[in-house]
Amino acid sequence: MTDQPSPELKPFHAMEIMRQARALEAAGRSVCHLEVGEPGAPPAPKVREAVARALPDPQGYTNATGTSELREALARYYADQHGVGVEPGLIVATMGSSAGFILAFHAAFRPGARIAITRPGYPAYVNTLIGLGFEVVEIPVSAADGWKLTGAAVAQAYAKTPFEGLLFASPANPTGAAVDRGGLAGLVATCARLGVRFISDEIYHGLDYSGPSVSALELTRDAIVINSFSKYYCMTGWRIGWMVMPQDLVRRTEILQQNLFISAPTLSQIAATVALGERDYAEAQKAGYARNRVLLGEGLRNLGFDIGPPSEGAFYAYAGIGRFSNDAMDFCHRLLEEAGVAATPGVDFDRTSGNGFVRFSYAGTQATIEAALERMSAWLK
Amino acid sequence: MTDQPSPELKPFHAMEIMRQARALEAAGRSVCHLEVGEPGAPPAPKVREAVARALPDPQGYTNATGTSELREALARYYADQHGVGVEPGLIVATMGSSAGFILAFHAAFRPGARIAITRPGYPAYVNTLIGLGFEVVEIPVSAADGWKLTGAAVAQAYAKTPFEGLLFASPANPTGAAVDRGGLAGLVATCARLGVRFISDEIYHGLDYSGPSVSALELTRDAIVINSFSKYYCMTGWRIGWMVMPQDLVRRTEILQQNLFISAPTLSQIAATVALGERDYAEAQKAGYARNRVLLGEGLRNLGFDIGPPSEGAFYAYAGIGRFSNDAMDFCHRLLEEAGVAATPGVDFDRTSGNGFVRFSYAGTQATIEAALERMSAWLK
Repeated sequence: MTDQPSPELKPFHAMEIMRQARALEAAGRSVCHLEVGEPGAPPAPKVREAVARALPDPQGYTNATGTSELREALARYYADQHGVGVEPGLIVATMGSSAGFILAFHAAFRPGARIAITRPGYPAYVNTLIGLGFEVVEIPVSAADGWKLTGAAVAQAYAKTPFEGLLFASPANPTGAAVDRGGLAGLVATCARLGVRFISDEIYHGLDYSGPSVSALELTRDAIVINSFSKYYCMTGWRIGWMVMPQDLVRRTEILQQNLFISAPTLSQIAATVALGERDYAEAQKAGYARNRVLLGEGLRNLGFDIGPPSEGAFYAYAGIGRFSNDAMDFCHRLLEEAGVAATPGVDFDRTSGNGFVRFSYAGTQATIEAALERMSAWLK
Repeated sequence: MTDQPSPELKPFHAMEIMRQARALEAAGRSVCHLEVGEPGAPPAPKVREAVARALPDPQGYTNATGTSELREALARYYADQHGVGVEPGLIVATMGSSAGFILAFHAAFRPGARIAITRPGYPAYVNTLIGLGFEVVEIPVSAADGWKLTGAAVAQAYAKTPFEGLLFASPANPTGAAVDRGGLAGLVATCARLGVRFISDEIYHGLDYSGPSVSALELTRDAIVINSFSKYYCMTGWRIGWMVMPQDLVRRTEILQQNLFISAPTLSQIAATVALGERDYAEAQKAGYARNRVLLGEGLRNLGFDIGPPSEGAFYAYAGIGRFSNDAMDFCHRLLEEAGVAATPGVDFDRTSGNGFVRFSYAGTQATIEAALERMSAWLK
């Protein structure tokens, strides 16, 4: 059926590096954390106040699809930020985007179905699909093309190995690449023509440095849209996200959620509802990432990393390490052990060419970025 | 291969009833909630205080397997309550037992593998297995046998349709039936003899009214043990549970967790660590359930429900409705609409014989039980 063997389940190396970094810290070492994509700040003050107020109450299960307050606030978010009307009944609050992916795959496809993703891409895409028994087709994107996926590349990959779904993120992890409205429309139209279900991972929406991100909902109602409060709203450990389902899949999604997860964490739903109104706070965090983005990009380039212009979104620099190593895993382990800088090897995101790359997150503080650059400068000499 | 067709994905009716009940409440109606198995109390005061103290900090991802504090506290729990030594490295903090099941199935089996469960049983067992692409074998248990599964029944079912895993809960949902040490040892030995992986769902441990529950870890290290803070520690909406894995599956489980879920909610891990030390509070809640257990059992019997002696554990009464109806779903809908009492139809737990039963949860307050009995008394006349 397919001429490329489906990849195997592998560790999420960013999480492995984080565990090793924490073990070093427990032994008294200082580590600059640039390995995991998570903001250094807590959620907005009003978010935390709302949670504190709710603590005396029993926090029971919510409806499987989430509280009506949260789903109505999300509907307003789509009206305000994207100019589209979304029925709250199509929205499902999830345990982070992680649970959203599991629900999306099982709502839309049969186990064993083939789903396409980009290479490089978020490691959990391939590992979750493989772990759940789906097949994966990887469509390569390259630095030369600004790491951007095109409708033509999708059609070309489909002609070689047909697939039932395309899972795509813009802004993307690890490259930060973002497609514009035309680019997204090209992908949506190609999927529609091929009969491929489009799954739009919009987790980095809001963290866009060259104009607002376009939601797939502005272009189609057949797509599955997955999003999260982790990044823009500084709520990684709260494990709260959401999905917008097409009408034909929403009931099956609700039934799957009832059984697979029951409901998303209740305090996190309360927090998320308030967070949607605290965009000023989120924008202030983003302004910090925007400064870090330039600082880290220039710093890495000066140190000899191969890196293009700063990316359009998210908070990652995906840097070529050709001048230093052809083994990203070894490079990252030594960088952590010897220099006290945690970063993620490119093999996490690209099992074919990732040994030539390392991903640095600039979601932390400016002081962390500066210290990491100093440590790397001393270490690379 | 199998002479019983694998069941289909169906709604979790308890969640459907809860949604309808909340819609009625939103319209101004009063509802006694006996449909969902969740305590009416918040977690212990010290738990909530610890969460309030943690709120100013960014709550990032934890290690995939959970914080070392929580896993070490859980190891102490097994030493103190069960007299067994469990390496913290075998413990994985999960997003409720729900995520634990998903991890267990995919860590131990290939998609399509056949797993056995009891009938009646927790609805999410069959639906999660079916939703994820596994096959299900149901082993019936009956009121006449105190709803207890035996090694002989397992062997008999296996001879008819072999399976790779047995998922078993004691105390059980919806019946509250609990096996003693000898009964559990019989199941463990039968599984070992047949080469069947034993998955022990111990979520209702602690809520035992005739002596402490026996953990599978007291009998074997080959079992997968799944547990949660939802019930005994009053933390349903916090979505925090844990699993203890056999040595041969723990690394694959960690990798699956990294990719499928990243990590369990961080505030809930902080709360759970404190909750383990607050057993006096949990025991006080349990004393309330113990009173409700007698009150509800006697009340239902006086009203004409067919119900045996109070069950050994959990907080459910699984009552025969033969005198009133042969359609549990219709009975529950009318009970909710006309009498304002929410309960769960037996078809949720048993698609074969469940139309003759309704499950009532007595995890709420005594006032709720009393009001529900009064409303049912008036309605049944």
